[in-house]
Amino acid sequence: MLNAEINSNVLKELVEIVGTIVDEVKINLSEDGLNLKAVDPAHVAMVDLNLNKDAFESYEADETELGINLKKIEQFLKLSGAGDIIRMEHDEEENRLVMEVNNITQKMALLDTAGMTDPNVPSLDLPLSLKVKGKHVLNGVKASENISDHISITANPDGFEIFSEEDEDMVRLSLGKDELEEIDANEEVRSLFALDYFSSMVKCVSSDTILDIELGADYPIKIQFTFADGNGDVRYLLAPRIEST
Amino acid sequence: MLNAEINSNVLKELVEIVGTIVDEVKINLSEDGLNLKAVDPAHVAMVDLNLNKDAFESYEADETELGINLKKIEQFLKLSGAGDIIRMEHDEEENRLVMEVNNITQKMALLDTAGMTDPNVPSLDLPLSLKVKGKHVLNGVKASENISDHISITANPDGFEIFSEEDEDMVRLSLGKDELEEIDANEEVRSLFALDYFSSMVKCVSSDTILDIELGADYPIKIQFTFADGNGDVRYLLAPRIEST
Amino acid sequence: MLNAEINSNVLKELVEIVGTIVDEVKINLSEDGLNLKAVDPAHVAMVDLNLNKDAFESYEADETELGINLKKIEQFLKLSGAGDIIRMEHDEEENRLVMEVNNITQKMALLDTAGMTDPNVPSLDLPLSLKVKGKHVLNGVKASENISDHISITANPDGFEIFSEEDEDMVRLSLGKDELEEIDANEEVRSLFALDYFSSMVKCVSSDTILDIELGADYPIKIQFTFADGNGDVRYLLAPRIEST
Repeated sequence: MLNAEINSNVLKELVEIVGTIVDEVKINLSEDGLNLKAVDPAHVAMVDLNLNKDAFESYEADETELGINLKKIEQFLKLSGAGDIIRMEHDEEENRLVMEVNNITQKMALLDTAGMTDPNVPSLDLPLSLKVKGKHVLNGVKASENISDHISITANPDGFEIFSEEDEDMVRLSLGKDELEEIDANEEVRSLFALDYFSSMVKCVSSDTILDIELGADYPIKIQFTFADGNGDVRYLLAPRIEST
Repeated sequence: MLNAEINSNVLKELVEIVGTIVDEVKINLSEDGLNLKAVDPAHVAMVDLNLNKDAFESYEADETELGINLKKIEQFLKLSGAGDIIRMEHDEEENRLVMEVNNITQKMALLDTAGMTDPNVPSLDLPLSLKVKGKHVLNGVKASENISDHISITANPDGFEIFSEEDEDMVRLSLGKDELEEIDANEEVRSLFALDYFSSMVKCVSSDTILDIELGADYPIKIQFTFADGNGDVRYLLAPRIEST
Repeated sequence: MLNAEINSNVLKELVEIVGTIVDEVKINLSEDGLNLKAVDPAHVAMVDLNLNKDAFESYEADETELGINLKKIEQFLKLSGAGDIIRMEHDEEENRLVMEVNNITQKMALLDTAGMTDPNVPSLDLPLSLKVKGKHVLNGVKASENISDHISITANPDGFEIFSEEDEDMVRLSLGKDELEEIDANEEVRSLFALDYFSSMVKCVSSDTILDIELGADYPIKIQFTFADGNGDVRYLLAPRIEST
């Protein structure tokens, strides 16, 4: 059962965050809100997202799994203006999701969730953590896109760096520890990542969002942030590329 | 003979309205203004437009037919800013249309009107009429574009509905009679239309324009509205698709 | 040696002006500023540009030649906001240009200038000169683009005209001498030019820039203007098309 109302801005943010990883996703509903876990088709990136029921204008649900095509939600969202309230309901008889906004009712077929298992989110104990504004990381990503298809991310007690090079060109974003919101580091760590994955993950966050990043040497990177006024939280994991040396 | 001045906004609106149906059109000029009738190449849609001489800044003409390529007028309009006054003249000797704006003079070859006959606009006596704001219809059209390539339009004494479905997905815009500007209905009627034609007709009207719609069961739809501060009026006719059942 | 700071707006303007002619260019640095001369691959158009050291926020250089890929500078500029200060340095050991903005450092390989000779800028003594606002010329160019791929430019003591025709269509921008900033003419001259070259030259100037134009009959056209608050000056030369008659 699902019977809820949500601000279109919140739903749009959710769709952007998850849509960087997958087009189809299983959403797990409970009394307290929703959770979803998804891994991209190449098994390189993962998202784990919670949205508390307080993020909704009204929310009533019991334990249910909904198989959602995010592209359809994205199209529906274009029918709403910023801040419009969207009504959502699960029509269990026909197994369709019913959404309503501005005199428009759309019914969408749900996907069969039988074959959709929740991926295991590995619990990683990464040696270094820092907090940084989204706009800085986004700047570093944009700069790297001019140069190469991968980036290295380095952090140590003195700061944080995104680096990219190809042939004789290179670009570096350097943030000293004073330009970070917080850093907790005892050593220097460095990993290499595919730029397209990393880029699409950070392009959906707003410039002022604080990213909570955890890093190791040649380990996955963990990027966490909140949305929906703190009622939603996201955890991205991205596997490292192994450096050919 | 034609010697007139017109606000670029009015001419732009005229070109958009007629350009959804045809690229080339015969315009019939008289002392009192202009009229044109055009049917699309597939004979599915028709436009009948009048523009009174009061819509012009200045207007002098006698009975003349001008064969116009609307694409050329559209390009010329890009040389003018919103609200610029455009001078138009018929150079009868060279059979060219002379247009002037912002120190620019363009002379365009006119089309031979010998083979361009005015289509007969059928007089239809449709059982149901209603008035609705353009933005509502536009919203219904945008929603339907996510689903299918045709729509059904239904009206009855209680309201008005645009409906579209394909496989297990469906979308509906429903307007109760209180959300309409006016409705005059004794029965329920329903017709099916090709979405692309319907969509291009309503996409050129502004959100606040009141559309005067007449409908029958499996009959053409008639959509009327005014423009140019009431000095212009438009009538679109769109043939129904026959439902395969 | 180069060690300078420049407003991103000024650097952006320089890249647009030169980028209409070439992608790669040799920049000649001296104590007083920079100069560059470039001719397009088809040898039809030429640019000669000076930027005085006063156009920089800070500037220190000695006689050096830098082989620059303008596309890379263009990409780097996208990392800066309007008005950001960009630091530039020549790393002589690695022969790379180092640029910095907003915590980002980019190092770009420089091109070998051995094969890049400065083109000879012909000294032309053209019989007619006039000054006109960029927006007028831009309007004439936009109008001509609807008609043909070449334009004729005519000037005489009474004014200035850009004219284009093809088949039965024609367009003309006419400016009387009162609509020009200045004109110095004793005779009528007229030349024909390729529209694409002429168009890209004037599209990079702002509407209020005063263009100083010199013309002859079937001679190259010279277009001069200043930028960077008068600390930069540009001279374009464009060869005429010979009219087939």
